[in-house]
Amino acid sequence: MYSKMEVIVIKQLEERIQSEGRVLGEDILKVDGFLNHQVDPHLMRDMGQAFAERFATSGITKVLTVESSGIAPALMASLALGVPMVFARKHKSLTLTDDLYTAKVYSFTKQVENQISISKHFLDKNDRVLIIDDFLANGQAVTGLLEICQRAGASVGGVGVVIEKRFQRGHELIVDQGIPLLALASIAGFEDGHVVFSHEGE
Amino acid sequence: MYSKMEVIVIKQLEERIQSEGRVLGEDILKVDGFLNHQVDPHLMRDMGQAFAERFATSGITKVLTVESSGIAPALMASLALGVPMVFARKHKSLTLTDDLYTAKVYSFTKQVENQISISKHFLDKNDRVLIIDDFLANGQAVTGLLEICQRAGASVGGVGVVIEKRFQRGHELIVDQGIPLLALASIAGFEDGHVVFSHEGE
Repeated sequence: MYSKMEVIVIKQLEERIQSEGRVLGEDILKVDGFLNHQVDPHLMRDMGQAFAERFATSGITKVLTVESSGIAPALMASLALGVPMVFARKHKSLTLTDDLYTAKVYSFTKQVENQISISKHFLDKNDRVLIIDDFLANGQAVTGLLEICQRAGASVGGVGVVIEKRFQRGHELIVDQGIPLLALASIAGFEDGHVVFSHEGE
Repeated sequence: MYSKMEVIVIKQLEERIQSEGRVLGEDILKVDGFLNHQVDPHLMRDMGQAFAERFATSGITKVLTVESSGIAPALMASLALGVPMVFARKHKSLTLTDDLYTAKVYSFTKQVENQISISKHFLDKNDRVLIIDDFLANGQAVTGLLEICQRAGASVGGVGVVIEKRFQRGHELIVDQGIPLLALASIAGFEDGHVVFSHEGE
């Protein structure tokens, strides 16, 4: 069940994906016009409010994301929730990691393994985290952030993503752990270069 | 001359720098607690409004920044101005650059040269740009964005930075080109590990 506000934001987002998104190859969706390179601040604000409304009673103390495309929606969610946002840094590899929680994240799109890291100063056992990201596909980035939360002793109140590819395994990976997930746009698949949305959450 | 609103934001920012900033070595200031890793969304919103107010009559059509630390203040400025934000991507080097405007940016802190790039789809001769960044030191990142604007035929209405090191050459580099600059916190220098602010703009 979506709230009235979520329905409005989802509709707006789906329209932007249909009109501006480009499907490349089998399963790549480029949304450079409003999310991943050029950013629409009003859409980000509305999505941030939708995430905040969904997780308003989850006791969230911190919003976590990974640089760079997660920062805009995460910032707007953190503003609406009134809590700090922390973005994990992405590196090829790290040698000095004493002050850091780290996790390995493999990108299927770019076929590289990165390390992500968050300073121990900004996450601890008193935190209850909302993880926000731009895309959920195989769930690698979210899994990395979940590992970091576990190492820090922080609990996870939920995961919010702008776009999920429902046909990849990220969605199951999160909900099978009992973690509440809000994906604003849920893509069932691509047909002839067009996006087909899943509306199973309605 | 600062407006009343700018004075409030500047005071708030200077207090955060004094209380949370860490001076490393000769000229490095770490502000990981509210800007470069953990991000304070309320401070970002207030700074975004200060940038927007200063450049409200400059005919800005687009806010430009470089990933990752510039994204938060740039997004809030773009929200307050009601225009899109574009963040330049940072790469070690690029081979395929047909669709991109690129520039080289040397980081003195990290001692590496990166390329930054912006898609030709999102910047053109009809654009009037506000460049926003987290730090202004030697002005390398801003210079890279200015080069990209020139290549795109876009005009530049102003530059806004959260923190400038007034003793390095970035400030002069921008104002000598006649480009209006708003630096919210202006650092005159570091003394015994403490930050000394410059208030010459008052």
